[in-house]
Amino acid sequence: MAQSAVDGTPLVEPLLVGSDEVCLTGPSTLMPVGRAERLAEIFKALSDPTRVRLLAHICSSEHGTACACHLPETLGISQPTLSHHLKKLVEAGLITREQRGRWAHYTAVTDVLDVVQDFLGESAVASSGCGAER
Amino acid sequence: MAQSAVDGTPLVEPLLVGSDEVCLTGPSTLMPVGRAERLAEIFKALSDPTRVRLLAHICSSEHGTACACHLPETLGISQPTLSHHLKKLVEAGLITREQRGRWAHYTAVTDVLDVVQDFLGESAVASSGCGAER
Repeated sequence: MAQSAVDGTPLVEPLLVGSDEVCLTGPSTLMPVGRAERLAEIFKALSDPTRVRLLAHICSSEHGTACACHLPETLGISQPTLSHHLKKLVEAGLITREQRGRWAHYTAVTDVLDVVQDFLGESAVASSGCGAER
Repeated sequence: MAQSAVDGTPLVEPLLVGSDEVCLTGPSTLMPVGRAERLAEIFKALSDPTRVRLLAHICSSEHGTACACHLPETLGISQPTLSHHLKKLVEAGLITREQRGRWAHYTAVTDVLDVVQDFLGESAVASSGCGAER
């Protein structure tokens, strides 16, 4: 991460290295707070199994869009519970909502999925390149 | 998802399709509950900005391993707060802990990162292939 922080957070914080005779590793860089907060917000929206299933369901639906009329029966949940979960996914920017006549339709926002995937990819590549366990 | 469910959850639940003249989409498949619960557990561990930064820091550290001695100063948090966050990441299987002399060292588990990345990749590919918004 050589780029400059856009939110004012220094990429490398001051470090105090103690008397750690057995410490084999050195300091590293830190992710800017703003990016970490955005990723955490997305992860929080997906921290519920029903929302994970909802997102997967929406993504795998025809035209990448699912109609709200099918969702309660599919997932075995009530309409108010469904609305709560869909709202969380919309607020996190993972799906968009569009009213078509009497039913709302929900579509996955692939850009957001890509951002999270990129983060996990960077993390996995960085650690596997340095001999991470397992 | 043509594979059979290993946890007994049917991949396609019974559907009731109502009088939805304007509904353009049909039913789809559902992710097995067990997989959704595992993914949600991982996402929950990453639903905090400090833990996102910790994981990124550990992944980008030399040898994919970070020594606990550097972490509090790097992140500007107390040792008890750090221990709490590291415990959550260990419990979710995202990192492993190894005691080396007086300091604990933490290493990212790339397999787990891969599992989450695969899920997001599947979701993005499935929806973008069907003309998802944005």
